[in-house]
Amino acid sequence: MSENHRQERDSLRVRIIEVGPRDGLQNESDIISTEAKVSFVDALSETGVAEIEAGSFVSPRAIPQLADSDEVFRKINRKPGVVYSALVPNERGLERARAAAVSKIAVFTAASDTFTRRNINCTVSESIERFRPVVFGAKRDDMTVRGYISTVTHCPFEGAVPPSQVLDVMRQLLDLGVDEISLGDTVGKAAPCDMRRLLDQIVPRIERSRLSLHVHDTCGMAVANVLTAWTEYRIESFDTAAGGLGGCPYAPGASGNVATEDVVYALKASRVSLPVDERKVIAAASEIGKVLNRRLTSRLSQVQTEQIAYEGVA
Amino acid sequence: MSENHRQERDSLRVRIIEVGPRDGLQNESDIISTEAKVSFVDALSETGVAEIEAGSFVSPRAIPQLADSDEVFRKINRKPGVVYSALVPNERGLERARAAAVSKIAVFTAASDTFTRRNINCTVSESIERFRPVVFGAKRDDMTVRGYISTVTHCPFEGAVPPSQVLDVMRQLLDLGVDEISLGDTVGKAAPCDMRRLLDQIVPRIERSRLSLHVHDTCGMAVANVLTAWTEYRIESFDTAAGGLGGCPYAPGASGNVATEDVVYALKASRVSLPVDERKVIAAASEIGKVLNRRLTSRLSQVQTEQIAYEGVA
Repeated sequence: MSENHRQERDSLRVRIIEVGPRDGLQNESDIISTEAKVSFVDALSETGVAEIEAGSFVSPRAIPQLADSDEVFRKINRKPGVVYSALVPNERGLERARAAAVSKIAVFTAASDTFTRRNINCTVSESIERFRPVVFGAKRDDMTVRGYISTVTHCPFEGAVPPSQVLDVMRQLLDLGVDEISLGDTVGKAAPCDMRRLLDQIVPRIERSRLSLHVHDTCGMAVANVLTAWTEYRIESFDTAAGGLGGCPYAPGASGNVATEDVVYALKASRVSLPVDERKVIAAASEIGKVLNRRLTSRLSQVQTEQIAYEGVA
Repeated sequence: MSENHRQERDSLRVRIIEVGPRDGLQNESDIISTEAKVSFVDALSETGVAEIEAGSFVSPRAIPQLADSDEVFRKINRKPGVVYSALVPNERGLERARAAAVSKIAVFTAASDTFTRRNINCTVSESIERFRPVVFGAKRDDMTVRGYISTVTHCPFEGAVPPSQVLDVMRQLLDLGVDEISLGDTVGKAAPCDMRRLLDQIVPRIERSRLSLHVHDTCGMAVANVLTAWTEYRIESFDTAAGGLGGCPYAPGASGNVATEDVVYALKASRVSLPVDERKVIAAASEIGKVLNRRLTSRLSQVQTEQIAYEGVA
């Protein structure tokens, strides 16, 4: 196979999973209107991303910011080819997801017991037992199920997390029937060498098409981690948030998700021919930024858009 | 040699060259007081950086922001072991540097004729001819001479720059007697793959101890580029600016230098045992940020300092 051909084939596989409407908005102190959320999701649908995590069917008391996810799913324009997913913590949430015609759900645990206890008030094992009926119910209804594993390299309470703990959680999730694993550096402290230690253990044990990397940019290393995962491990899917929205209320010091536009730029500059338009992502993020009265943190959103065009070195 | 031993030996060689007082401040629209500059340099002297580019002996009409460099050099506390350098464009500047007891100077050109013409109003070849007497004079006085090559991967006017052009300029500078080369991604558009194409050509042709990488973080890839240069090419020296100060008046759309604290964090997280204290760097940057009334752009300066401590993955 020629190098060009190989590159093209590989490139076509990269998927951007936009998590801003869920992971981003759930961490904002303000509660914004359903209309603003719907506009945000609809704008993101036009950017070229493969998937949008559009809401969360958790208890409205736990996360009031996303209490209207049912309505959001009813009102968005679902663009053919784009997957719209939602976080689901329990069977009540699964019912709501079903009623909202959601075809893909996500369950949530971590590689650290302390983090899980502070986040969802149970151990990792208990969290997996809790969502066992959710996964079964979802599979019965032909939904796709994603499993989030948080704190895959660092826990804000326990410190460094050994890859063996992540592997153990991943095996339990796969045994349960979860289709896809998202590995989260929730704290945003990982360096590429940490990613290598982790992915050296993980990648040989799961099909790459079932793996996504979910990094936060607290310490400025998120883009380096994404590029390491792509260049050295051919990870094919990345969770990102337009504008760098997000953070984690249970992870002190953690800042936003890596910005969709920064990841898109970095991958395109690395010769991946992604179908995502970073200008449209920035435009979508700017609109929601105005609603939130929040300055975007992405690098690319600070640059004049006419300067963004990437030119490959000859 | 054991892996630990090799790592330790390599680590000791990494040098952080703080360019904030020159490359940072020359790009600020405000002119700040000599006292504030002196305080900034003195605070940086206590951070553990190897070198500080403390001023520029260019025409005060060209860059009024640094017109007081003579006085800055007179008033700073020179800490033993730290190198204090200055930009010098011509023989008049060299005289001033000599009078200010500067032991290391830097001359400035680029890999792109259009950029050089817009920046210093001559071609690359003419710029080298212009500073020939400067380099000779400096060497006669036992000064160390650094040669900046800007736009090593992208020119804001010409687009992608082929590595052969950089190599050609580097050869001319080395032939002239320049001791050290700083490769600048002035626009901040390079991806790690661009760095690889460049360094594949450059690294075999110069001792690594004579090479520094100077990246801007316009598109969010500066840290990824630094880590690529360290991990894959063992580049030993990085130009950075506290707080991510800087930009380039001649490079539309270019934003600040990569932040010293972000690079220090990234290298430490990559197991390099640098002697630089990122908290002190952030403190120094915060003080100058207040004077400039400017929000710092570094990732690390957005994080509560108690969250910064890096824990290696076991």
